[in-house]
Order: sequence, then C-alpha cells, then structure tokens
Amino acid sequence: MAKSKYEYVKEFETDDRMLRNVYVLVRIDGKGFHKFSQTHDFAKPNDVRGINLMNHAARCVMNELDDILIAFGESDEYSFLFRKSTDLYQRREAKIVSTVVSLFTSAYVYYWNDYFTELKRPLYPPVFDGRAVLYPSEVEVKDYFAWRQADTHINNLFNTSFWALVEEGGLTPKAAEARLCGTDSKDKNEMLFTEFNTNYSKLPAMYRKGSVLLREQIPKDADKDAIIPTLPETLPGSKSAKVTPAPDTTTIALQSGPDPISEPVSEAPSGHTTPVAVASPVVSQETVMQEGIDSNSHSESMKRSIDASEAEQQDAEGEPVAGKEAPTFKRMKKGVVIDHIDIIGEKFWAGRGAYILAPEKKKKLRS
Amino acid sequence: MAKSKYEYVKEFETDDRMLRNVYVLVRIDGKGFHKFSQTHDFAKPNDVRGINLMNHAARCVMNELDDILIAFGESDEYSFLFRKSTDLYQRREAKIVSTVVSLFTSAYVYYWNDYFTELKRPLYPPVFDGRAVLYPSEVEVKDYFAWRQADTHINNLFNTSFWALVEEGGLTPKAAEARLCGTDSKDKNEMLFTEFNTNYSKLPAMYRKGSVLLREQIPKDADKDAIIPTLPETLPGSKSAKVTPAPDTTTIALQSGPDPISEPVSEAPSGHTTPVAVASPVVSQETVMQEGIDSNSHSESMKRSIDASEAEQQDAEGEPVAGKEAPTFKRMKKGVVIDHIDIIGEKFWAGRGAYILAPEKKKKLRS
Amino acid sequence: MAKSKYEYVKEFETDDRMLRNVYVLVRIDGKGFHKFSQTHDFAKPNDVRGINLMNHAARCVMNELDDILIAFGESDEYSFLFRKSTDLYQRREAKIVSTVVSLFTSAYVYYWNDYFTELKRPLYPPVFDGRAVLYPSEVEVKDYFAWRQADTHINNLFNTSFWALVEEGGLTPKAAEARLCGTDSKDKNEMLFTEFNTNYSKLPAMYRKGSVLLREQIPKDADKDAIIPTLPETLPGSKSAKVTPAPDTTTIALQSGPDPISEPVSEAPSGHTTPVAVASPVVSQETVMQEGIDSNSHSESMKRSIDASEAEQQDAEGEPVAGKEAPTFKRMKKGVVIDHIDIIGEKFWAGRGAYILAPEKKKKLRS
Amino acid sequence: MAKSKYEYVKEFETDDRMLRNVYVLVRIDGKGFHKFSQTHDFAKPNDVRGINLMNHAARCVMNELDDILIAFGESDEYSFLFRKSTDLYQRREAKIVSTVVSLFTSAYVYYWNDYFTELKRPLYPPVFDGRAVLYPSEVEVKDYFAWRQADTHINNLFNTSFWALVEEGGLTPKAAEARLCGTDSKDKNEMLFTEFNTNYSKLPAMYRKGSVLLREQIPKDADKDAIIPTLPETLPGSKSAKVTPAPDTTTIALQSGPDPISEPVSEAPSGHTTPVAVASPVVSQETVMQEGIDSNSHSESMKRSIDASEAEQQDAEGEPVAGKEAPTFKRMKKGVVIDHIDIIGEKFWAGRGAYILAPEKKKKLRS
Repeated sequence: MAKSKYEYVKEFETDDRMLRNVYVLVRIDGKGFHKFSQTHDFAKPNDVRGINLMNHAARCVMNELDDILIAFGESDEYSFLFRKSTDLYQRREAKIVSTVVSLFTSAYVYYWNDYFTELKRPLYPPVFDGRAVLYPSEVEVKDYFAWRQADTHINNLFNTSFWALVEEGGLTPKAAEARLCGTDSKDKNEMLFTEFNTNYSKLPAMYRKGSVLLREQIPKDADKDAIIPTLPETLPGSKSAKVTPAPDTTTIALQSGPDPISEPVSEAPSGHTTPVAVASPVVSQETVMQEGIDSNSHSESMKRSIDASEAEQQDAEGEPVAGKEAPTFKRMKKGVVIDHIDIIGEKFWAGRGAYILAPEKKKKLRS
Repeated sequence: MAKSKYEYVKEFETDDRMLRNVYVLVRIDGKGFHKFSQTHDFAKPNDVRGINLMNHAARCVMNELDDILIAFGESDEYSFLFRKSTDLYQRREAKIVSTVVSLFTSAYVYYWNDYFTELKRPLYPPVFDGRAVLYPSEVEVKDYFAWRQADTHINNLFNTSFWALVEEGGLTPKAAEARLCGTDSKDKNEMLFTEFNTNYSKLPAMYRKGSVLLREQIPKDADKDAIIPTLPETLPGSKSAKVTPAPDTTTIALQSGPDPISEPVSEAPSGHTTPVAVASPVVSQETVMQEGIDSNSHSESMKRSIDASEAEQQDAEGEPVAGKEAPTFKRMKKGVVIDHIDIIGEKFWAGRGAYILAPEKKKKLRS
Repeated sequence: MAKSKYEYVKEFETDDRMLRNVYVLVRIDGKGFHKFSQTHDFAKPNDVRGINLMNHAARCVMNELDDILIAFGESDEYSFLFRKSTDLYQRREAKIVSTVVSLFTSAYVYYWNDYFTELKRPLYPPVFDGRAVLYPSEVEVKDYFAWRQADTHINNLFNTSFWALVEEGGLTPKAAEARLCGTDSKDKNEMLFTEFNTNYSKLPAMYRKGSVLLREQIPKDADKDAIIPTLPETLPGSKSAKVTPAPDTTTIALQSGPDPISEPVSEAPSGHTTPVAVASPVVSQETVMQEGIDSNSHSESMKRSIDASEAEQQDAEGEPVAGKEAPTFKRMKKGVVIDHIDIIGEKFWAGRGAYILAPEKKKKLRS
Repeated sequence: MAKSKYEYVKEFETDDRMLRNVYVLVRIDGKGFHKFSQTHDFAKPNDVRGINLMNHAARCVMNELDDILIAFGESDEYSFLFRKSTDLYQRREAKIVSTVVSLFTSAYVYYWNDYFTELKRPLYPPVFDGRAVLYPSEVEVKDYFAWRQADTHINNLFNTSFWALVEEGGLTPKAAEARLCGTDSKDKNEMLFTEFNTNYSKLPAMYRKGSVLLREQIPKDADKDAIIPTLPETLPGSKSAKVTPAPDTTTIALQSGPDPISEPVSEAPSGHTTPVAVASPVVSQETVMQEGIDSNSHSESMKRSIDASEAEQQDAEGEPVAGKEAPTFKRMKKGVVIDHIDIIGEKFWAGRGAYILAPEKKKKLRS
C-alpha cells in the first residue's frame, strides 16, 4: 500500500497531553487589535459593539465546550478555565488551544454583522492567538482571574482618563500621556471627577470590570441555543444608548449601573457582586433576520448561546425587574450567563463561583 | 501596585519554543466536516466551491506568514511548511499553531460568501484544529507531502467510485461500500471506466492531486496579494463548468487538464508538472461588491488576498483576458500560486520545489 | 572572542522547568539488577545487605536534598517525593532527575564494601535510571505510595513462595512458577504455612513492606549525618522505647514483625504502624575506620550518611544492644529515619506522615 | 487486585521521547567539583589522575552504549554524541540522560582507587548532573564540539597562567586574578614564556585540547573490552607507530605534545591532529589485584574498560613493550580510543571523524 511507505513521518508527532488533575486555562488574544480597532473606528475608550461581539464569541466557545467552568474577557483577550478533570481531546494541548482559538475566531467573524450592522464583514479577517497554562490549585485560579480583572481596572481607568484628556480636554495624545505619567488610581479618579465631571465608579461595570461568563440556572423553557443579546448598547454613555431601547430596559440597565467598584484595586476590592443588569429582551429586526438564518441550522456541534440578561429576570422573584411582573419559571436548567462583577476577592468564589472550586466527583476523575 | 500581587501566576506559563533549525509543519483539520459538508449540501465526491474556499483561506495564511515555504491541501485539511530558520514568535509552538489556525478559520468564514454565493454565511461557524510537527531533514519533508498526496489519491479514488455507485449506479451506501471492499486502485479504475464510462485519470487534477501553494514568480506589475487563479470552475466535470468561461480560458484550463496522474501511486508517479493554467475569467457582480468593501482596508497586518479569479482582471484594464495573446511580462516578483501537481517523487523537488530544499543563508539562521 | 562564534549552539538547549506547586516524584530503578543480584549471589528472596545498601544510598540522597519529604524503597527501586514548593535547580527536570540518580548511584558504589564486606567493590559498576512524575494533589501522592507498597507486598509474597518451592521444596523454577500460577494472596499464605511452616506475616516487615525514609525527631546530640537508626521505636519518646530489646537483636531483625500485615492487601491493610525493630547503635570497628577516612572530609555539599546502624548490628555478634538502657535524650532535632511500616491507608498520613500533607507556608511558595 | 486500584497514578507519567532523526547530545557536569578537587588535593592546574579517571568513566559509557559516536571531555564535564537514528530507550529523554549520568558516576567511583591509589575511595561520593540537547545538523554538531574545545583552551590557558603566578610567582590568588584581568591569549602566552619559561604550546595536548573518544580500528585479537590505548598513533598501521618513544614515558606524558595548538583559537586552529602521548605505564600491584577481581565478572552488561595508562606500554616506541617488535595485526575491529586532538575545524571531520557525519543507512532509521 502506498500509504505505509510514507506514513512513518507520523512518528515525528509528539505527545503533548497535559498533566492530569490540574486546571487548564486557555487565554486568547487579538493580534494587532490596536490597528484593527482603529481601522473599524471603535469608540474610545470602549466600544460596546466590540465588547458584545467578544462576549458573544466567548459564549459560543463555552456553549460548545462543556468542561469550561468560567470565562473572563476584557479588551481583546478572553480566558477560559477548564475543569481539572477535563479529558477533552485527552488533554492534548495543541488540540485544545487550537480548537478554542478557532471556535472563537470563527464566531467573531460569523457574528460580526450582528453587532457592526453597517458593515457586512470586517475590512479584513481578524486573528487571535492562544496558549494554555496549567494551574494546580484554587489559589492560583482565583489569583489568575484577580490578575486579569485588576489589569482591566488599571487599563480602563487609564484609557478613560487618557481619552477624556484627548477628546474632551483637547490634549494631544502625547500631552495626555505625559499628564497621566506617575499618577495613581486616586489621582485619575479625582481628575476625571473634577475636570470632566465624571464619576468613574458610575461608569458601566462592563467597562470597569470586564465580562464574566458563568454557568447558571436559566428558565427551562428558554431556547437553550437562542441568541439573547447582552445589549449593553443601552447602557448610559454608550454611543448607541439612544437607539431604541425598550423603555424598561434602560431602567434595568441603570439599576445595575450604580454598583461601584471600590477603588483603588490595591485596597480591598468591594467584592460585592451585585450582578449588573445587563440586558434587555427586545429583539431587533436585525436579530430576527439573523435568527431566520440560524434557525435553518440543525447543527448540534455549535449551539447558540443564551444571554445573561434573561437569566437575570428569572430568579426575579417578587418584582425582580422594575415594575415588570416576575415571570415565574418553575423549572430551570443550566445556561451560560454574562455578568460584570467583581471576581477579585473571596466573595465571588464563596458565592456564585462556588461550584468552580467545589471538589469534583471521583467518577469524573477517571472519565 | 495591584498588579504585582497576582502577577506571579504568569510564572506558571511554560516555555514552548520548538527546536531550532528543523522544519516546522503545521497541519490543520476541519472539525466535524463530514456533518458540515452535508449540512451545506457539498457536491459529492468533490465540491469545487469548498475546495476553492479552502485554497483561498490557505493563501491568506501564506500571504500573511512569509516563512511558509509550501502548503498542501486536500479535503478538509491543509499543511503548511515553515522554513527551518523561521523565528516567528521565537518559534513558540502555541503561538504559531494558534495563529495559523485562527488565520485560516477567519478567512474561511470571511470569504465564505464569495464561494457560496447563495448563503450570506455558513449555517453555523466552522471550526478547525491544528498541530505542529517538526521534521529535521529534507527526506522527511518530501515524504510528508508524499504521504498526504498519496492519501488524497486513495481517498479520492475511493470517493469517486463510491459516489458513482451510489448516485449513478443506484446502490445504497452500504452496498457501495461492500462492493468496494477489498478492491485496489486498479480495480476501481477499471470499474469506473467500464461501468461508468469514466476515465479516472482525466478527472480534474485538483480532485486527484489536491492543491499545492507555492511561492513563484508572478508578473511584476501584478498585485502582490492578488490572484493567481486555480480556476477549477472551468474544469471539465465541475458543477460550474458551464458558467461563462471565457472561450480561451477553457482551452488554457484544458491544456493543463490532460496531465494524468500515473496510477497507481505505488508505481512511479508521472511527476510531470505541467502547471495548471492560471488564468481567469469573468468577475461577477458579487465579487465587485466585495472589492468595494475590501478596498477600504489599509491594514498591513492582514493583507488581502484577493480571490483567484478577480485578481486577474484587476490589471486587466483594456481587454484583460479576452482574445489576448500570451502576455509578455518582463519583470517578475514572488507571489503565491496554486497548482495541482505531483509532489510525490523527486521531479517536483528537483524542479519547481527546489528552493524549498535549498540551503538557507547563514544570515537567516541567526535572525 | 573565540567563544562567541560557537556559543550559539547553547540556544538549542530547551527549558525543562516543571510546573510549579505540584509534587515532584523521582523514581529510580536498577538497570539489569536481576543479573546484578545473581552475579553477586544475593540471598533469595531477600538480601539484607542489598536492602540496607539501597536504604543507605537513599538516605544519602535525602540528607543531601532537603526538599525531599519522604522516600520509599523496595527491591531495586526507590521513590523520592519533593515538596510542592521546591525550587531546587529552578525545578529543571533533567537537573533534578540526574542529580538524584547520580547521588544514589555514587553512594551505592561508595558504600558497597560496608555491606558486602568480602568484596572491595562490585564485580562491575551498577547502574540506575530515573524519571520524574508530577502529582498535583495529596490523593495521588498517597495512592502513589500505596501503589508501590502494594507492589512490594505482591512481589515479595510471590518471591517468598517461589523460593520456598525451589529451595526448600526442590522444585525447578519452571515447576515453581507453574505451581503459583493463578494463586491469590490467600493461597500463597496458606501454602507457605502448611507446606513450609512459614507464617508469612511474621517475616521481617522490611521484606514485606519495603523501607520508608522519614524526617523525624532524633536526639539533639546525635551526629546529624551519622548513624540514624532504623529502629525509631527505640528512640526516646517512641512508644516502644521502653521495650527491652531481645538480646539477640539479629533474630528480631530477621524475623521481626510482631506486627502482621493484614492479608490480602485488597482488604483493609492493618495500617497499624508498629515499627519493626531492626537496629542498634553499636558502632563497629569497621565503622570507626571508615569514619576515620570520612572525618577528613570537610565537604558540606555531600554529607556522609552513615549506614543505618542496623547494618552494624548484623555482624554485631555478641550482645551489641543487650542490656543497655534506653538513652534519654532531652533535646531533639530533625533527622532521616528508616522504618518499615504501612503507608497504605490513612493512618500513616494522619499520623507520622502528617507533615507531608500539611499546607506549606506562603513564604516557601515564592522562595 | 490491589494493584489496579492505585495504578492510575501511572497515567501522570508523561511521554518524553525526543524528536527523531536529530543528534542527541548528553553533557554531564561534576557538581561542586571545585571543592571536590580541593578536598582531594588535585594537582593544579591539571591533575593527570583526575583526567584519566574521567576518561576511563567516559569510556565505560561509550563501551556500554553503542549509539554514542564520539565523546569529548574537559575539566569536570563530558559530552556524548548519539547517532541521529538512535532508538535507545525509544529516545526517552529521562532514561537516556539518567543512564548516562549513572553509568559515568558509577564508573568514576568504581575506578577511583585505580587512579588515586593511596585512597580506597573518595572522601565522599562525587555527583554529576546531566542534560540532553538536540542538534539537527552536522554544522551544529561540529560547532558544539568546537565550542567545548575552545572553552577548554581558554580555561586551561587561564588556569595555567593563574597557577604559574600563584605557585611559581608567589602571588596571592587575588593578585593573580587581577594580573590576568583584561589579558588575551597572546598576552598570557607571552607572560608564560617570558616570566615562567613555559612554552604553552608544548604543554601536553591533553591539557590544552581535552580528550576525544572515538570508535576506531583496533587489533582484532585485542580484548575488546580491555586495554584501549590513549595513544592510537602508536598502534600498528598508524603513521607514528615507529616513532621512538623517549625511555621515560612519564616525562613524555607530562610534557608531551610536539604538536602545538595554534594560538589564539580565534585564528585558524592548526587542525593538525597528531595525537598526544599521555600516559603512564607502570602497572601497580593494586591494579593487578583489581584485575583479579574483575576477571571473575561475567557480566556482559557492563564491560570493563581498562585505563589508558596500562595501555600505554603497547605504544612503547622502539621496543614498545619489552623488546618486542611492532606486532602486525592483519585484522582489525572497532574499539574506543582516546586522543587529544583538534576537533575545531574541518580537518578532523573530514578525516578521522568522517564516519560521524556519514549518512546512516536506511535500515538503521527504522530499527
């Protein structure tokens, strides 16, 4: 057989299975996204559409790969934590990393037009890279996410200050950078408040805290795979804030807005994890049309992901969401929800994130 | 600084730089493409649109990453060979693999609609995975590509026979499989000829030999990123064969067509490498519109790789193709070309592929 | 400088630092020790000299490398467990493995003549190989040692039965093997008892349970690197300290174990860890002479670890220990002790081995 | 079975097989040999006994492991080059490295007393560590050995100068170091010549060039495992066989090298490879006794390699060994020889080392 003569080259492939029983963290990063965001006129310092698209792509990854426990995104990066016992692709590193990166990239391009509605597709194909890191214990896992969220805070406070100086203050980028040099969190907060009348802690949590994807209870009769957008474009301050938000949605959004992150990060973070009410149920024409397409899909391999926002309402006992009557869902199931909460500090890990640290059943270990 | 407290988690990242001075081969594979091709009604046994889209995506990768020497694609897989001396990302494995996979995936989704014109985007986001393999010597590199091309041959002959039995012969898939069980290349060739009046060796080389991407001389005044078309749509037997080929284009295409692969693979392959006439046809409205968008892009990091067919006609001012005599280009430069030739055997490596085996200059080694 | 021109070859060295914060287990194995033991006429099924020499070499390793928490030896293998936080050689795998193997081998040859007194050195240089394995959690660490000790039990019971059949029963090796084929622990125990009048559970624990090296309290005024007895029960504070050693220690040592291992292993092992009374502190002439040599050494990097007194007392004919009263040491310090106890089951890990599982101080983690 | 319950811990072992078809270089280093050499009063700057013991241990390694092509030693380090196609232990890195290190260490301790005849064993067990490096091409292999030999030259010239200043010049170590600071090879050569009447290039090549172990023809009827001379030029058939040896071989051994190394290394090394006469013929009683023991050994796994010095007598120029005339050996076989020649530069690789670069037969590749 012709095959066998050459097939020995397969023996040069090496075994890259990762150590068992440790957490696998896959982090992806946009390549050249500084330029990419400029080319596509992303709003500064934050572009809601861009963030929502990132979140959407991340949710696709999480819907597809059941062993992901939690994900966290900020800027052009996203981190995915796999359970210790995952045996996905027998823990082969290249397989896992490349699949996550490919899935994310694919979804990013695929759903682009749902967020950047005026442009059929990006001006050129965007690219992400990825890597895996192993973390043996819960301590490192918590510290990893704290590291990323602290980074989010620091970068966003800097960017917010920088663009205030440039866009509102009329400084050149160079001058703005010089102005910020040597300042700490407190200085920047004060500058924003006194010079630009901005209370940093009132800015959307999505900007200040990044996005957390969790597996939580969602209504049983919700379409597991349906697209329920985060719709943060209805958040105050967003470019598109005025765009047709449902009257109540805005209220919801604002409800959550006030949840301030304690500053500075180096002090004890507030830790209080009032979930940001993200959402808003209104489905735009756009989305419907898209649905039309998607509904043709019978693919099992890539399920559509439900957004946090709905999730919110659910627990919604009493009058959860402003004046609206609480929909009463009797039966719940697990779904992926998005939130913008503190994951620095123990509160999160003892509360909503507790299942992540919960010991796994033996059975899982040997699967 | 808040950062430093948590930043120690970075120390868990490991160094995955690959051995220097050996060839790096990155192979990507479609995930669940059996289902993907069914869902999207890919023509059996080969779908020209699908192959062209794969080739297009691969060319994007090759245009972007200068250190790729050659690429080979078949079915839902593609292999990329990096020069020994590449120092891309300091040879970090995860970076290289994930970038190639992401680039390929991104381009596949991005250019989907240019090939599957009736569908804005696939019914769900497609996914690829990837891996890197190191090959120390020229012998293994040649044998690697021979391995993949032999695989192409074996699979395509089987598929061609199978689908002939099913679609033309009216057998059930099960019966067709039973019928083919135990047959060798010669048996299948004969069956195709006597029962289905098909001369296997006259089928398009793209099907029988896969696709080879090479860096070769192209006209100096051609757009560097532009298209050196495969034009398989003009190949006999293709679904779209009847679609408005320029009268002379077909001829060109057919000129190259007759180049039969010698059978079976275990015998000496013909090795004669008449390149497929590159050429170029009619640009549809669709493509023009796409051009409109793309021309807005000034990105350097991701250069646009225009599809084969369109490119041609860009320079094509005046009467590009129509009735033209062989153009005489005086000055040439390197560009990525696609062909469907034998890469099993020495002929290719001594001829068009010679530069791949050529020793690299010292300077390169330490760059 | 001449150096720089060639020094680039150093760049081919790869970084093999092992994941942080997981246990590092180094296991070494004798190469060709079946032949080695035959060549040197090792007693069957167990050679006390050989075991003691192995133990001595292992203690050298443990004395030298402070980050080793526990070691376990049986037959021609030894396992060394490093603390999670060890930063020895920056956790470089090759460095750690090769150092342990070299240290062990060196000591084995070096101290040969102290155990095989009739032969200046072995008939040819013995060789060991080694490997490192990472274990993330306490569960695996316990199970690892349970695995090795269960192996000890199974092998020793088989060997004891086999050699009884051959040496006492007069069977050929082939016949003995056939006889044992398909028997379980119970069968073998019974056979030994009924046919060879041997109560397996009364055989020395050293044979049945292997050897465990622990860091425990030893008398303050004992030479840290010197004779550290295998008989920790005779140390002040141990419950068996007052037990008057039988005048014929040798007998005890060889028959030992009033403490029967419960059979079969698959049932709950007795877990009760009465240390086997082996040794005796008397220093022989031999040792003194040897000391004479060693005392010239001022090396700190390789401290001499003198053999486990036991060795001593073997030859110790007369009444080495006899009649001595238990010495009363007021102050204690850490030292390496050897024992032959159950490490299968929780009792050990909750008791004498508790410090191994104890969480490490933060400071250690970042050292 | 008790075994199976715990045996899962084996799954934490990782596959560390090294890339195929590249050279494997294992380098070992003495640990703390600065102190070790002081403790044992090694002669400064070079101790012939120490070098010969290193060489002896290295030859044991090379005799044992057939896939080693060449070895090079200097100071307390030794490098072993395995053929590209080696499949030793399936190329498992830890196995190969640990075996080489253990073998070397074992032999070093084992043969200690044959070289340091006044001391039964070292004052404490010496330790070596090791690591593997992969080299894909001949260029790197040559440059690797050039790197080590250049290092030998630089260190030895420095040490020779340093100890001349200290021992003959009466300087303190500190003053000697200050004196040499900033000097180049030429300066040091001159200083040695004018101040200490020493022609550096006439010092023994063993000191200046290190030791090279090669597989070469040796007389067929010589004991394969026995005397393998350091002085292969005196072997029958070699051009220098007839050179009359000075009656006092020892003197020769120490002053040796009519063959000067060209200086400085950065200039073209002489490349002419007249092997240096090293050794020292007298066979002590000690050795004879040792032989007695060794002759009992029937071990095949570790063949005894007798030291160079004994071998010496053979070359015995003029009346080499006791009046006998140069024996004429018709048939030859491969054996390990030691020499002290230039391996920097092409001459060696084109001549005596040519077989190392010779392409391997296909058969070997797949074994």
